Amino acid sequence: MRVLAMLDGTLADPDGLHIRVDDLGLTRGDGIFETILVVDGKPRELGPHLDRLERSARMLELPTPDRAAFERCAQVVIDAWTGPDEMALKIVYTRGPEFGDGTPTGYAMGVPIAEKVLRNRVAGVRAITLDRGFEPSIVASTPWLLLGAKSLSYAVNMAALRWAESHDAEEAIFVATDGSILEGPTSNVVVADGRTLRTPPPALGILRGTTQGALFRAAERAGWATKVEPLRLADLTSADGVFLASSVRKITRVRMVDGRPLPEAAELHAELSALYESEYA
Amino acid sequence: MRVLAMLDGTLADPDGLHIRVDDLGLTRGDGIFETILVVDGKPRELGPHLDRLERSARMLELPTPDRAAFERCAQVVIDAWTGPDEMALKIVYTRGPEFGDGTPTGYAMGVPIAEKVLRNRVAGVRAITLDRGFEPSIVASTPWLLLGAKSLSYAVNMAALRWAESHDAEEAIFVATDGSILEGPTSNVVVADGRTLRTPPPALGILRGTTQGALFRAAERAGWATKVEPLRLADLTSADGVFLASSVRKITRVRMVDGRPLPEAAELHAELSALYESEYA
Repeated sequence: MRVLAMLDGTLADPDGLHIRVDDLGLTRGDGIFETILVVDGKPRELGPHLDRLERSARMLELPTPDRAAFERCAQVVIDAWTGPDEMALKIVYTRGPEFGDGTPTGYAMGVPIAEKVLRNRVAGVRAITLDRGFEPSIVASTPWLLLGAKSLSYAVNMAALRWAESHDAEEAIFVATDGSILEGPTSNVVVADGRTLRTPPPALGILRGTTQGALFRAAERAGWATKVEPLRLADLTSADGVFLASSVRKITRVRMVDGRPLPEAAELHAELSALYESEYA
Repeated sequence: MRVLAMLDGTLADPDGLHIRVDDLGLTRGDGIFETILVVDGKPRELGPHLDRLERSARMLELPTPDRAAFERCAQVVIDAWTGPDEMALKIVYTRGPEFGDGTPTGYAMGVPIAEKVLRNRVAGVRAITLDRGFEPSIVASTPWLLLGAKSLSYAVNMAALRWAESHDAEEAIFVATDGSILEGPTSNVVVADGRTLRTPPPALGILRGTTQGALFRAAERAGWATKVEPLRLADLTSADGVFLASSVRKITRVRMVDGRPLPEAAELHAELSALYESEYA
């Protein structure tokens, strides 16, 4: 089952044709998106997702997204959903047709969580680290590189996942040329040591994690320490547990990095998952 | 005037809706393209463009584009064109709908050359150099970064052009972190010194230029030396002339780099333009 609503709030056929061939989101990857987890009709972290959409829009110099319209449009999809309890709600916002009147394109689409993602939530994943090719020191001075924007130009992220899948892994973890751990192609990295959770800082040119943020809030309330600080490969291999956090993955265990087994961390995983879920109880 | 043909060869309304919201070209920038100059009904460098489309497809692990179908589809657009003598013919090829049957999306669209591009051909352009953020030494070992593929994930290229336009320039020239000159966001850099033309090598992670290639062929026939070798900023500022080559730009003069005037090079520009045109006489 899939449900589609256009930004004006009208439901539309998800298999239908709704986009022009000159939409700059298509021809130039010139647009942004968010993927929101909806459980039992309740969107998780909708506010932080829409905040991030606005940040991405600023980075791409897109017109400010109409927040109320996206909220309405998301709700239309949620109200029409009769599928599984969990839905991935993708919102997309592009610069619109190149030869149009300048109106951006926007829509929200709900789809079931992919089988593969559900399997990985339970079984954990093997990850390989991949050089992302840049030095974090350049991020602040190169805004045109859009590092940290969630743009539609995700061909590299998709290529990294294909690379992982063809090299005995389910996930990739990007690493900067100075060895700093960055993020997954569509997830954030969280490392647990004792009662401390760590994740790399957005200033490295990565996305601010919405799921990671929720986990950290819950963990702080439960007495954990949380740190947003640079991590290196050695921090992954020496950790009590390494996790990939994303809306659809929730908190997924990393069982292996670059062929090297990590601690099983099943109890830790259960504890962190419970913490994350407690945010929505 | 605009003309659209889908990959099956049927003409379609260029203002119509022909693309699904889950097309991976749109949601992930997961596709490739080429822009071909057509003059008086004759496509220029169609073979090299289709060769490059195939190279890009290999880099993105897309199904091999159906060359005959793209040739046919391009011809349908050309035959239906009743606009100006020159047309920009864009061909697009994506991984297709995420929730589809796996069929890629393909089409060709003819549009007039943008006024701005025509003006710049005559007046020349001011360019600014922008750090592209990577070291050329990584290119060979990081295929997942898709450096040198002409993918639809062009948000950075568009951001670079916006950056240039908001900083008293019409064009950007990407530079690697080691100072190597790379390419424009949608053009190749050509430098002239005496009777020698130089352009940076594709191994730096940049596109093989189709227009630059045509110019070099013509120049070689006319007795010029041509070199494909790394260039540095000093090579631009000391040159007899610096040019941006692309299908729609043809051979456009760079009059200024980072606010520094370059030689006027009007005669040189006329000579190189004539050489380029001689390929199609």
